[in-house]
Amino acid sequence: MKKTLVAMMMAGAALVAVPAAGQKADDTNRLIDQGMNHSQVMTIAQEMTDGLGPRLTNSPGMRRAEQWAIDKFNGWGLADVHRDGFEFGRGWEIVSVSARMMSPRPLALTAIPVAWTPPTNGAVSAPVIVAPMTKEEHFAEWKGKLAGKIVLVTLPGDGSEADKPGFHRLDSSDFEKLDSFRQPKYDPDSLNRRLERVAFPEKLDAFLKAEGAVAWVRESKRDGKLVHGEGYNYRAGHTLTLPGIELAAEDYRRLARLAKSGPAPELEIDSNVRFDDSDTKAYNIIADIPGSDPKAGYVMAGAHFDSWVAADGATDNAAGSAVVMEAARIIKALGVRPKRTIRFVLWSGEEQGLLGSLSYIDKYLASRPGPAEGEDGNLLYYGWPNRYPITPKPGYYDLKAYFNMDNGSGKLRGIYAEGNVAAVPLLKEWLTPYASLGAGRVVAATTGGTDHVFMQSVGVPGYQFIQDPLDYGSRTHHSSADTYDHLKAEDLRQASVVMAGMLLASANSDKTLPRFPVPSQPSAYDPFKYKDPNE
Amino acid sequence: MKKTLVAMMMAGAALVAVPAAGQKADDTNRLIDQGMNHSQVMTIAQEMTDGLGPRLTNSPGMRRAEQWAIDKFNGWGLADVHRDGFEFGRGWEIVSVSARMMSPRPLALTAIPVAWTPPTNGAVSAPVIVAPMTKEEHFAEWKGKLAGKIVLVTLPGDGSEADKPGFHRLDSSDFEKLDSFRQPKYDPDSLNRRLERVAFPEKLDAFLKAEGAVAWVRESKRDGKLVHGEGYNYRAGHTLTLPGIELAAEDYRRLARLAKSGPAPELEIDSNVRFDDSDTKAYNIIADIPGSDPKAGYVMAGAHFDSWVAADGATDNAAGSAVVMEAARIIKALGVRPKRTIRFVLWSGEEQGLLGSLSYIDKYLASRPGPAEGEDGNLLYYGWPNRYPITPKPGYYDLKAYFNMDNGSGKLRGIYAEGNVAAVPLLKEWLTPYASLGAGRVVAATTGGTDHVFMQSVGVPGYQFIQDPLDYGSRTHHSSADTYDHLKAEDLRQASVVMAGMLLASANSDKTLPRFPVPSQPSAYDPFKYKDPNE
Repeated sequence: MKKTLVAMMMAGAALVAVPAAGQKADDTNRLIDQGMNHSQVMTIAQEMTDGLGPRLTNSPGMRRAEQWAIDKFNGWGLADVHRDGFEFGRGWEIVSVSARMMSPRPLALTAIPVAWTPPTNGAVSAPVIVAPMTKEEHFAEWKGKLAGKIVLVTLPGDGSEADKPGFHRLDSSDFEKLDSFRQPKYDPDSLNRRLERVAFPEKLDAFLKAEGAVAWVRESKRDGKLVHGEGYNYRAGHTLTLPGIELAAEDYRRLARLAKSGPAPELEIDSNVRFDDSDTKAYNIIADIPGSDPKAGYVMAGAHFDSWVAADGATDNAAGSAVVMEAARIIKALGVRPKRTIRFVLWSGEEQGLLGSLSYIDKYLASRPGPAEGEDGNLLYYGWPNRYPITPKPGYYDLKAYFNMDNGSGKLRGIYAEGNVAAVPLLKEWLTPYASLGAGRVVAATTGGTDHVFMQSVGVPGYQFIQDPLDYGSRTHHSSADTYDHLKAEDLRQASVVMAGMLLASANSDKTLPRFPVPSQPSAYDPFKYKDPNE
Repeated sequence: MKKTLVAMMMAGAALVAVPAAGQKADDTNRLIDQGMNHSQVMTIAQEMTDGLGPRLTNSPGMRRAEQWAIDKFNGWGLADVHRDGFEFGRGWEIVSVSARMMSPRPLALTAIPVAWTPPTNGAVSAPVIVAPMTKEEHFAEWKGKLAGKIVLVTLPGDGSEADKPGFHRLDSSDFEKLDSFRQPKYDPDSLNRRLERVAFPEKLDAFLKAEGAVAWVRESKRDGKLVHGEGYNYRAGHTLTLPGIELAAEDYRRLARLAKSGPAPELEIDSNVRFDDSDTKAYNIIADIPGSDPKAGYVMAGAHFDSWVAADGATDNAAGSAVVMEAARIIKALGVRPKRTIRFVLWSGEEQGLLGSLSYIDKYLASRPGPAEGEDGNLLYYGWPNRYPITPKPGYYDLKAYFNMDNGSGKLRGIYAEGNVAAVPLLKEWLTPYASLGAGRVVAATTGGTDHVFMQSVGVPGYQFIQDPLDYGSRTHHSSADTYDHLKAEDLRQASVVMAGMLLASANSDKTLPRFPVPSQPSAYDPFKYKDPNE
């Protein structure tokens, strides 16, 4: 396989060096040649991960990364390269962290501070207590028992059994499952459940603080000594007051077992983290290849550039960011002038709730009513897609197609039509040249969790590609193993070619993607269903 | 499954509480009841792992563990509980370790000192150089280039693709593969190759030292931020002079890539390790349940108690050690007096070359000639099975059967007959009551890598059980994830019952296992094969 590829690349290089006289290479083949034989996607990804490291929204690291990305886009000659800011919250970064069991025996533990928690201000040491709490009702059991303690707030889990492969590529049976239209539905209770979950950390923090606890610890969601450190209390006035760390599952459960079998272990935590409130905004990076027809609108590629902090944010989402940047480089290198402007965006704030793309929509595409009086500002994200009416802005119809990449390093296998069955033929047509590269499928299903979602919610044609999952779910997603090592060069070269190809096709097409009507009310749901009080 | 087991256990408990008048429970059923319904195997394993932690041969931690085991055996009323020493080498332990990349950006790395390497005596900091070396021929390339450097001695690997399940239980197709007699063979060159591998670290150390290198770093053999830290230079006069650490593969490869893409990263290492030469011996722990017939000989169960240091040595081999101890507790609790003595042994030095069982054989079972004049003392292990003649000692025929457990936490599925097809019927007979527990298979194949091997090599009937592999190979073996979490309670209860059952059956049987003739020469090999000079 690899030998064949090398042979293909060498053959390709030879063709470029000695073109047949009088025959101009086709643009699609020039694009493939540029993306396969002259690829820079891994160099871009390496600088982004090894070089820049983690890119937490509005962190000092993200600020450096923004400048790097701007320099790159400018270096390739893109137009109007700029940062586009939106109100976010506090800056925060990890300087160092250590967690040690001091008794019954000394032992270094694998730990990460939970994002946006405060520092310990030097090492703090205290006995642990295992006090699992997920709801306010659970506080009563622990009242009066937490003073001077480091509180283990997760119910200790069981060891995992990885009885399915951790690394997976899609096959025809997977595609079959995806290719079925599902009727949209709206569950108003799911919003309330999510709001409760997101509000709980502040309630827990207030309780722990009032009880005189020293700090809190949670268990990693993955076994095998991996840690993650996601945290969501980033807004000024909402950051927690007690330091919080995540321990590797093995380390957390050892503490919990020892606390059950003997005297409570003593834990020492030194969480050296730093807030940076010099700027409360986060920034999307925007860069254009201008089109020749100012009335033809624009097409856009995007990927979120922000990451979590446990590693270098490689598969989530240097992969997508590098592909978007490489697609820009490829198209620019072809020297073609597309009919429509092609816009490249690196979003910020995705990990905190698709905030960068939401801000773009709100500014340039369509507005929805703000949170009601007294509603939590988190509703910006959680409540937004449920508020009506939607008011299209002047730029609403200018965006003809948006292509997003944010599902790891796996190659593109096709695209989700997001229930827009009328768009299937055109999406298929554009993908046709890349079918033999494995990317030809258009499936009816929707997919969520990334920056095309809010565009779809207002009727803008935003799409996410289908990608081979690889070990994104089993290992790298948000974890301390999310490093460049787990990026796949062949996959990312393919993805860059397909991304560039889709952009060029949609930018030059005589047709535009059929749109849905502007949504005017929530999708259907079952109004006769009773609510389970235990949910 | 779990519900059924709970129901069975509750039913069992009820039977014990109210025995049917006039009917005595069968010993096998009493044994199963004791092992399933009154099990202590997980309590034993928890104390051994969470409580005691790692048990490196001849380390201070191992010394504490030995005393704990002696107290346990004595507490259960076993006879003649004692330590049985053998000459080993230096004691060594980790106090703490840290490794940080200082430039191009600060980053904490996941590291472990390589066992028996010297301390850094505080933090040392230097630029890295990637200089992969596995043979003396490689030194020339790096001569004059290593002064003042931290040397990355492993060729950086590629990221892994876990495309098979990491957790596995055996099925009939696996057993079929195992159940075929393989003709023994002896490859004299394999010994030389192994000796070269084992001698290389000292040569590399001397070269690095002479070149003025500061320290060396190797890459973890597993992806996913796991580290291991195995090292073999434990003999006085043979410990290395330069500090050496193992870095997580992701961290190692990041350094290597950065060194290739820009200025060499600066690395800071603080390896705070400690030698303890207060005792150069390692100790096996031996405990007996005396038999009623002093002329009937003895049967024996064993597992190695020593571990590596990256975690708590849970699946390797607290699992086997806890099962051997629990089997002792179960049999003792039955109050039966076996015909033959049943001996329980916790070996030390297994990880350095089956040294504990080798010492037992050499003292009590059979001797082989010592290393030839001028041969490296490592030949004790490497050369031993190839030296003739074998001289049986008075105790040679007294050991009627030896049962070993050392393949992780997976339940016992049967036993390897080690090519001794004449022993198959009796092994099968003894396992029959446990067939419905999943342990009924006797396969012809041999298996290696643990403490029955040298017994077989001198013709003593030593056997290792077949075990479900679980995630032993993919994740826990020697790794920083080898904690109690990855032990399986149902598996270890089953293993304890089967181990106790096999001991009791072999101790009371009218028959003894058919033996091989005392081996008198190396097994057959192909004398006409030419040696590949590149091997």
